[in-house]
Amino acid sequence: MQDSSSTNRGTNLDPWYGAYAARTAGLSASEVRALFAVASRPEVVSLAGGMPFVAALPEDLIRSAFDTVMRTQGPMALQYGSGQGVPALREHILEVMAEEGIRAGVDDVVTTTGSQQAIDLVAKLFLDPGDVVLAEAPSYVGAIGVFRSYQARTVHVAMDSDGLIPQALRETIAAERAAGSTIKFLYTVPNFHNPAGVTMSAARRPEILEIARSNGILVVEDNPYGLLWFDKAPPPPLRTLEDDGVIYLGSFSKTLAPGFRVGWVLAPHAIREKLVLAAESAILSPSSFNQLVVNEYLNTADWRAQIDVFRGVYRERKETMLSALSEHLPELTWTNPNGGFYVWVTLPPELDSKQMLPRAVTELVAYTPGTAFYADGGGRSEMRLSFCYPTPENIRMGIRRLATVVGGELDLLRTFSGTGTLRVNRPDRRVVSPPPDLG
Amino acid sequence: MQDSSSTNRGTNLDPWYGAYAARTAGLSASEVRALFAVASRPEVVSLAGGMPFVAALPEDLIRSAFDTVMRTQGPMALQYGSGQGVPALREHILEVMAEEGIRAGVDDVVTTTGSQQAIDLVAKLFLDPGDVVLAEAPSYVGAIGVFRSYQARTVHVAMDSDGLIPQALRETIAAERAAGSTIKFLYTVPNFHNPAGVTMSAARRPEILEIARSNGILVVEDNPYGLLWFDKAPPPPLRTLEDDGVIYLGSFSKTLAPGFRVGWVLAPHAIREKLVLAAESAILSPSSFNQLVVNEYLNTADWRAQIDVFRGVYRERKETMLSALSEHLPELTWTNPNGGFYVWVTLPPELDSKQMLPRAVTELVAYTPGTAFYADGGGRSEMRLSFCYPTPENIRMGIRRLATVVGGELDLLRTFSGTGTLRVNRPDRRVVSPPPDLG
Repeated sequence: MQDSSSTNRGTNLDPWYGAYAARTAGLSASEVRALFAVASRPEVVSLAGGMPFVAALPEDLIRSAFDTVMRTQGPMALQYGSGQGVPALREHILEVMAEEGIRAGVDDVVTTTGSQQAIDLVAKLFLDPGDVVLAEAPSYVGAIGVFRSYQARTVHVAMDSDGLIPQALRETIAAERAAGSTIKFLYTVPNFHNPAGVTMSAARRPEILEIARSNGILVVEDNPYGLLWFDKAPPPPLRTLEDDGVIYLGSFSKTLAPGFRVGWVLAPHAIREKLVLAAESAILSPSSFNQLVVNEYLNTADWRAQIDVFRGVYRERKETMLSALSEHLPELTWTNPNGGFYVWVTLPPELDSKQMLPRAVTELVAYTPGTAFYADGGGRSEMRLSFCYPTPENIRMGIRRLATVVGGELDLLRTFSGTGTLRVNRPDRRVVSPPPDLG
Repeated sequence: MQDSSSTNRGTNLDPWYGAYAARTAGLSASEVRALFAVASRPEVVSLAGGMPFVAALPEDLIRSAFDTVMRTQGPMALQYGSGQGVPALREHILEVMAEEGIRAGVDDVVTTTGSQQAIDLVAKLFLDPGDVVLAEAPSYVGAIGVFRSYQARTVHVAMDSDGLIPQALRETIAAERAAGSTIKFLYTVPNFHNPAGVTMSAARRPEILEIARSNGILVVEDNPYGLLWFDKAPPPPLRTLEDDGVIYLGSFSKTLAPGFRVGWVLAPHAIREKLVLAAESAILSPSSFNQLVVNEYLNTADWRAQIDVFRGVYRERKETMLSALSEHLPELTWTNPNGGFYVWVTLPPELDSKQMLPRAVTELVAYTPGTAFYADGGGRSEMRLSFCYPTPENIRMGIRRLATVVGGELDLLRTFSGTGTLRVNRPDRRVVSPPPDLG
């Protein structure tokens, strides 16, 4: 693994060492990023990444959308477009959001280069150095990185199996204000949380909004997974309960394909105007080509049925992962997500998931250490397992390998601490050869 | 036209007025942006935008590239990719840069969402509030906007028909340093300058680099038009003369199509590492789909011949524009670009191009006022005319209309100031109906 400390500062070998902006010190290689290199070896079962299983998308649907776009709108697809995005696509985005109960006007939607760009643009608009962003503990690694890149501080708020805890939010706001902090917004992933896998309960949603409203704190609701539920739909988005105080982020990366890099943001009008200016400054306009292909897909394909296909794929994989965890790692605890991509695993407190990772890679399994999802050093004995990309067979194999790793680490620790050994199933990892399609 | 002052600040109607970051005050609707709305009316001949004439690109080449990508690399095209960009495309980018004499390693190239994003990422890495960026007078409106969005100050350096003037650069550096400024980099468009249409001479290039080097100032060389020369190729890029001190920006927006939003940056190694981290923070990864389509186009199409086609199209349009200016507006002066998209026109000093614009739109012609290209209020009696998009017939019509506008303004001014009238051809604008394909 690359040592991130070597890349987040200039060194004396860099003649421009002294020229970087102060914010550049906050740009560091995330643990997830370093893992991408490791996990891309084909023999490793990666439970680390967040790649959707795009093989479940019939390529004919994309070909057909492309053919129609080039036949009917070729010059528009090849040209610069508006900074706010293609109007027809934004109309379709309203339909997609309506699936979750959101009602909005097409003028309040901005299409972005993935919803990651939406996070970046919102951060650029609001965050001065030293400002505070509130986020669940843990939170999405890519958002924490953006906030850090604008020299803001992410302060975590405790969550449980019903999501963000209202009383913890109140107390954190009070403590930060008492310390003189300027809190700019609450960043939350209410549905099938990345990485925690939990969903904010219906009862808590209005309460969280009321706390934010009464404290004058904007809410940034990031909802890339909301439509990918397994047994029942999650409660309606926060944005259905409140228009003026919520910036809502959506994405086609999980319900269609991330290779198009098409996401969106729905924002109160005055904020939306500034988001468009920030987007134009950053990239002039999002890709017309991609927006029109996605738009045509939404025009002609049965995209709701395709989302059902994805639900089935991910539901089976989640169930496989949980049953493998029960079988091979019963001494650990984990969340049971009703949608999305991720399970959050809590290890015995004496284990350090980051220190354990090299051993895991040796055993040909990868995961994301919990510390990646905390801005404050938390998460040492936690890890994120993703079930989105590997096949069920490989998920089972990956969990068996993980059991070998955890068992070995515990053996080692208990041997040295003199508390005896704890037996964990240690299946032979060579029984099944991994197929070559694993990332 | 939209009044930009209404969009660059919060207002009391915005409940989040007090929450924006300090940098957000620097996000304003550019004059170019406001013009896009005006110029999109089909009856207006727009000499304002910078849209390439993508109709000169055979769509079959794109269809064929797409088909091959989906047949051979579909899952990769639909998936997330690396933050640095697709390696095969970066190899091709080396070939494209080699056309202009640049030798570099594939590891030092980062593909970006258009080269606008490269400007944004470079600015994010280097610019602290109050820092100074040096740029030609005038300079690219989109770059000035980015620098402002990071609270940096653009300081213009005089140019003439041989480009940036070395002595002016020395003097500006000395003056800014004497005033205590921190100069972070020189942003320059050496070839077929946007908006000025001039090219930095071969003799000046090493001199400019030496001034930058001896002052410890990085050079950001933005070269989207270099391959689009008319009579002879421009001198080799600054990057061919200096590796360590130059960040080079390239783009497929002008030599292929902007709808893919594929550009790139070539940077010294330590800077390149940070650019990848900044890019990942901003968008995770650029569109795999678009990168693979562009890559396949470069694999299979005769892209050099296609660039020759574009050269021919733009050469004819430039010649048409200059001959129409000579015929209808002989009292003005203008640059004679040997490539690119733009002619820079100097009006009599009593005319204000921004004030004149509403009258021009009434006469169904649009241009970009010179003030858009200055950070310091300059350019009042200048304007940018672009010949890239309108047909030769429409360019002639547009210049005739412009002559009507200029003549009318001069008449008005001289009537009021009592200096008599100056006659300018005022052809009937209704003689030729504009075709509907004009943006």
